Amino acid sequence: MSKTLIFGHKNPDTDTIASAISYAYLKQQIGADAEAVRLGEISKETAYALDYFNIDAPRLVETVSQEVDQVILVDHNEKQQSVSDITEVRVTEVIDHHRIANFETSDPLYYRAEPVGCTATILNKLFKEHDVSIPKNIAGLMLSAIVSDSLLFKSPTCTEEDIKAAKELEAIAGVDVNTYGLDMLKAGADLSDKSVNDLLTLDAKPFTMGDKHVEIAQVNTVDPSDLLAQKAAIKTAINQVIDASHLDLFVFIITDILTNDSTVIALGDVQDAVNTAFGVELMDDTAVLKGVVSRKKQVVPQLTAALA
Amino acid sequence: MSKTLIFGHKNPDTDTIASAISYAYLKQQIGADAEAVRLGEISKETAYALDYFNIDAPRLVETVSQEVDQVILVDHNEKQQSVSDITEVRVTEVIDHHRIANFETSDPLYYRAEPVGCTATILNKLFKEHDVSIPKNIAGLMLSAIVSDSLLFKSPTCTEEDIKAAKELEAIAGVDVNTYGLDMLKAGADLSDKSVNDLLTLDAKPFTMGDKHVEIAQVNTVDPSDLLAQKAAIKTAINQVIDASHLDLFVFIITDILTNDSTVIALGDVQDAVNTAFGVELMDDTAVLKGVVSRKKQVVPQLTAALA
Repeated sequence: MSKTLIFGHKNPDTDTIASAISYAYLKQQIGADAEAVRLGEISKETAYALDYFNIDAPRLVETVSQEVDQVILVDHNEKQQSVSDITEVRVTEVIDHHRIANFETSDPLYYRAEPVGCTATILNKLFKEHDVSIPKNIAGLMLSAIVSDSLLFKSPTCTEEDIKAAKELEAIAGVDVNTYGLDMLKAGADLSDKSVNDLLTLDAKPFTMGDKHVEIAQVNTVDPSDLLAQKAAIKTAINQVIDASHLDLFVFIITDILTNDSTVIALGDVQDAVNTAFGVELMDDTAVLKGVVSRKKQVVPQLTAALA
Repeated sequence: MSKTLIFGHKNPDTDTIASAISYAYLKQQIGADAEAVRLGEISKETAYALDYFNIDAPRLVETVSQEVDQVILVDHNEKQQSVSDITEVRVTEVIDHHRIANFETSDPLYYRAEPVGCTATILNKLFKEHDVSIPKNIAGLMLSAIVSDSLLFKSPTCTEEDIKAAKELEAIAGVDVNTYGLDMLKAGADLSDKSVNDLLTLDAKPFTMGDKHVEIAQVNTVDPSDLLAQKAAIKTAINQVIDASHLDLFVFIITDILTNDSTVIALGDVQDAVNTAFGVELMDDTAVLKGVVSRKKQVVPQLTAALA
C-alpha cells in the first residue's frame, strides 16, 4: 500500500493538528502507511497542548505531490484552504465538520462529515468503529481540540456529541478539562508578541461567497481593548492585504473568550454586507457582535447569504 | 422538527429507491419526520423487487421546495442528477457511494460517503450504529440494491463490505440471493417493450468533464445482439439528443449481464475520447469493452481523465 499523508487546513489550529496526528495513529493501527503533516506554523495554543501531552508537532510541508500520490484531509475540504498542489494528488478520505465547497473528486472516496463542533469528536467515533483504543496522550490532544473549537463548550457550534466525546477523552487523558482547558485557551490568547500582520494571518481563511473573494481572520483574546488600541495600524494592514490579494471583503474578528462577544473590523468594497448579515451598523469600520464566537456557524453562513 | 424528504437520483435505479425507503424508515425510527420520494419512473427491476417484498413505491415528485425546507440525498450528490429545485432547499445529509462534484453547501452537514459498491451497504452500517433492527422486507429491498449495483457481486465496484452486508441482509430477508438475484436482474434486463428513445433514457446520467457536457446511458441485457440490430435507429436517436441538449459526447453502454462485457456506441464531437479512455478504436462508432460493467468505476473516471 502506498504512503498517505494526512493533514488539516493552512493556518493550522489545534483541531487540525490534533486530528492529523490522531487519525494518522488510527490508520497506522489498522495497517496503513500514514503520516501526519502540517501546512503552517503551530499556534501558541497548539504548542501548549503538544507540550503538555508530550507529542511532537507533525512535519511541515509546502507541497505533497512530490512524495505521495494520495492524501487524507482532516478538518477542511475547500481547495483554497488546503495544500497548494492538492489537485495533483488523489484525496482518498475526508474527515471534517465544515460545509462542503470547492471540493471535487473523479473517484468515489470515504467522506465523513458530521455537523459537530470538532473533527476530534468524529475521530473519537472512528476509533470505536475500528475497535482501536486511544492512547492517553492522543486522548489529551483530541480533548484539547474540542476545548479549542468549542471555547470550553461555550461556542454555539458545540453539540451534545462534543460534550460526550470530551467527557470520554477527559477520563482517558486524566486531566480536569476546565482547569487544563482554560490554561490552554489563555496560552493561545496571549497576543503580546504578535505584530499587526501576525494578527491578520494567525487564523485567516479565504472564502468564495457568490462571486466575491472574502477573507475572514479571527483571534481570541482576554482583553480586546489592547487590540482595538491598534485599530489604525490594523486597518492599514487590512487594506494592504485587500489590495495585494484582490479581495472584496476582509473581516477581522476579535473574540473575547471571557465574555464570548466579538468585535469585527470590516473593510473592502462590499463591507456593507456585514451590516446586512448581522443587523448592525459599522462605525469607523467596526461593530460589536454580541454572543458571536464562531466563524463557521455565526459568521460564514450569514455573510454567504448576504453576498448571495 | 420540520419534515424532510429523502430521495436518490433522477432515473432512479434499485439502489436509489431502496436507499430512500430504508433510510426514511431508519430516520422515522429515531424520531425524524421523514418521507421517501422519487424523481422518476420505477424500472422493471425495481418494480420486481418492490413487488417481491411487498413495498409500495415512493411518491413521485417534480420539485420539493414547495413542501419542505430540507432534504436528504441518497445515492447521489451532483446537482444535475438531483431534483430540479435542489438549490432552493437545505441539504442536511448525504449518504452516497459516488465521487463528489457539483455539490456545495453553506452550512455543515452530515455527509457519509464510502467507496463501496452500493448505498444500501452504508445504510446497513447506519442501522447498526443507531441500534435499529431492519425489518424483513426492507432487508430484502436493501439486498436487491446490492445485487443490482454489483450485478450479483460480479462488478469491480463490489467490495468485501458489500458481500458481507449482502450476507447479513440475505439472512434477515429469508431468500436465496443467487436465485432471487438472477430473477431480479433478468426482470430488469427485459427490454422487449422499450422504444429506442426509452433505451437512451432508462438509466442516463449527465456529467461535466473538463468543459465538456457528457451523457452516459446504460442498459443491462441478456442478449446484446437484439439491441445492436437496431444500431442505425439508436444512432439517429443519440444524434437528436446531442443536438437538443448541446452535448459534446453521448456514450450508450449495452452491458451483457451473463458475460459481463459491454458494447458502447459513442457519438459527439469528442467521441475520440472513448478511444483514448479505453485503448480501443471505435468502428462504426462502436467498440466492445471487455469486462466493463460499471459506469462509475470503469467508464466515468477513464473518460474524465481523457477529457481533462
